[in-house]
Amino acid sequence: MTIRILGIDPGLRVTGFGVIDKIGNRLVYVSSGCIKSGEGELPQRLSVILEGLGEVIGLHQPNQAAVEKVFVNVNPQSTLLLGQARGAAICAAVLQKLPVAEYTALQVKQAVVGNGHAAKEQVQEMVKRLLNLPGVPSSDAADALACAICHAHGGQGLGALATAGYRVKNGRLVG
Amino acid sequence: MTIRILGIDPGLRVTGFGVIDKIGNRLVYVSSGCIKSGEGELPQRLSVILEGLGEVIGLHQPNQAAVEKVFVNVNPQSTLLLGQARGAAICAAVLQKLPVAEYTALQVKQAVVGNGHAAKEQVQEMVKRLLNLPGVPSSDAADALACAICHAHGGQGLGALATAGYRVKNGRLVG
Repeated sequence: MTIRILGIDPGLRVTGFGVIDKIGNRLVYVSSGCIKSGEGELPQRLSVILEGLGEVIGLHQPNQAAVEKVFVNVNPQSTLLLGQARGAAICAAVLQKLPVAEYTALQVKQAVVGNGHAAKEQVQEMVKRLLNLPGVPSSDAADALACAICHAHGGQGLGALATAGYRVKNGRLVG
Repeated sequence: MTIRILGIDPGLRVTGFGVIDKIGNRLVYVSSGCIKSGEGELPQRLSVILEGLGEVIGLHQPNQAAVEKVFVNVNPQSTLLLGQARGAAICAAVLQKLPVAEYTALQVKQAVVGNGHAAKEQVQEMVKRLLNLPGVPSSDAADALACAICHAHGGQGLGALATAGYRVKNGRLVG
């Protein structure tokens, strides 16, 4: 049985997305990229996020969505803007009746790298390995794919690694 | 020429809406109310806001939308939640290709009461008078109607009062 998962890493400027298939215990890469919302007014930018993700969903027809929980910025105005972008991303998913799960960055990194405080580069590298990609995905796409992988493994700790037959030591893969 | 305006006062728990017609310089009440997003998970609550406003737009077919700018809460987590609710409200409008204007609470109160720091009750009372309502609207609906009125008058100071033939003194109507 195949479950197709859309991972989303929301941002006001750049929203990353990544689509993977979970086939039994295997993960297969489908697509990834990012949506740049441009320099317009807020409603226009939210519209770009909504329509961009709408296109991704229409094209790849995922069954479920996993959205990264954005963290609260020190600047309340930025927090508010980021919240609105995240709201638009979730709307894109619920509009097409996708069930939406939410994961913190800590949960995502824990699931993918085995270390909740892993660096961006480690996330990119692990996403590349777990999905057998020919190259390292961009940071936004990698975060979105990581979120999808986290969801694929029930959001549970090192599940991702267990199925890949790897062990992790100090945030690095061994054997 | 009639312009139908949808005013929105976004909130995670309660989102107020108000629809008015601007016919020349006259304002005519069309509809108002509020959408309660219930106690579910965040995606579910955003979905209620999106669908609720979608229904209002489908039913009344406004030409333009005016959304109140929410203010930043002392609690960053609340700010983030409020931002997401506001994002969903704006998405409902842009989904149906409505141009969206944004006004701060200060601008709205200035336009409707003539005092940017007016109390909630004053806003409710002035909305009742300006739209010839038989009773005072609920606070959420009144804020949404006030936002629509502010937009109808180009978001400009006391325009609303000039057309109604009133003057304001200390936040109260005179003659």
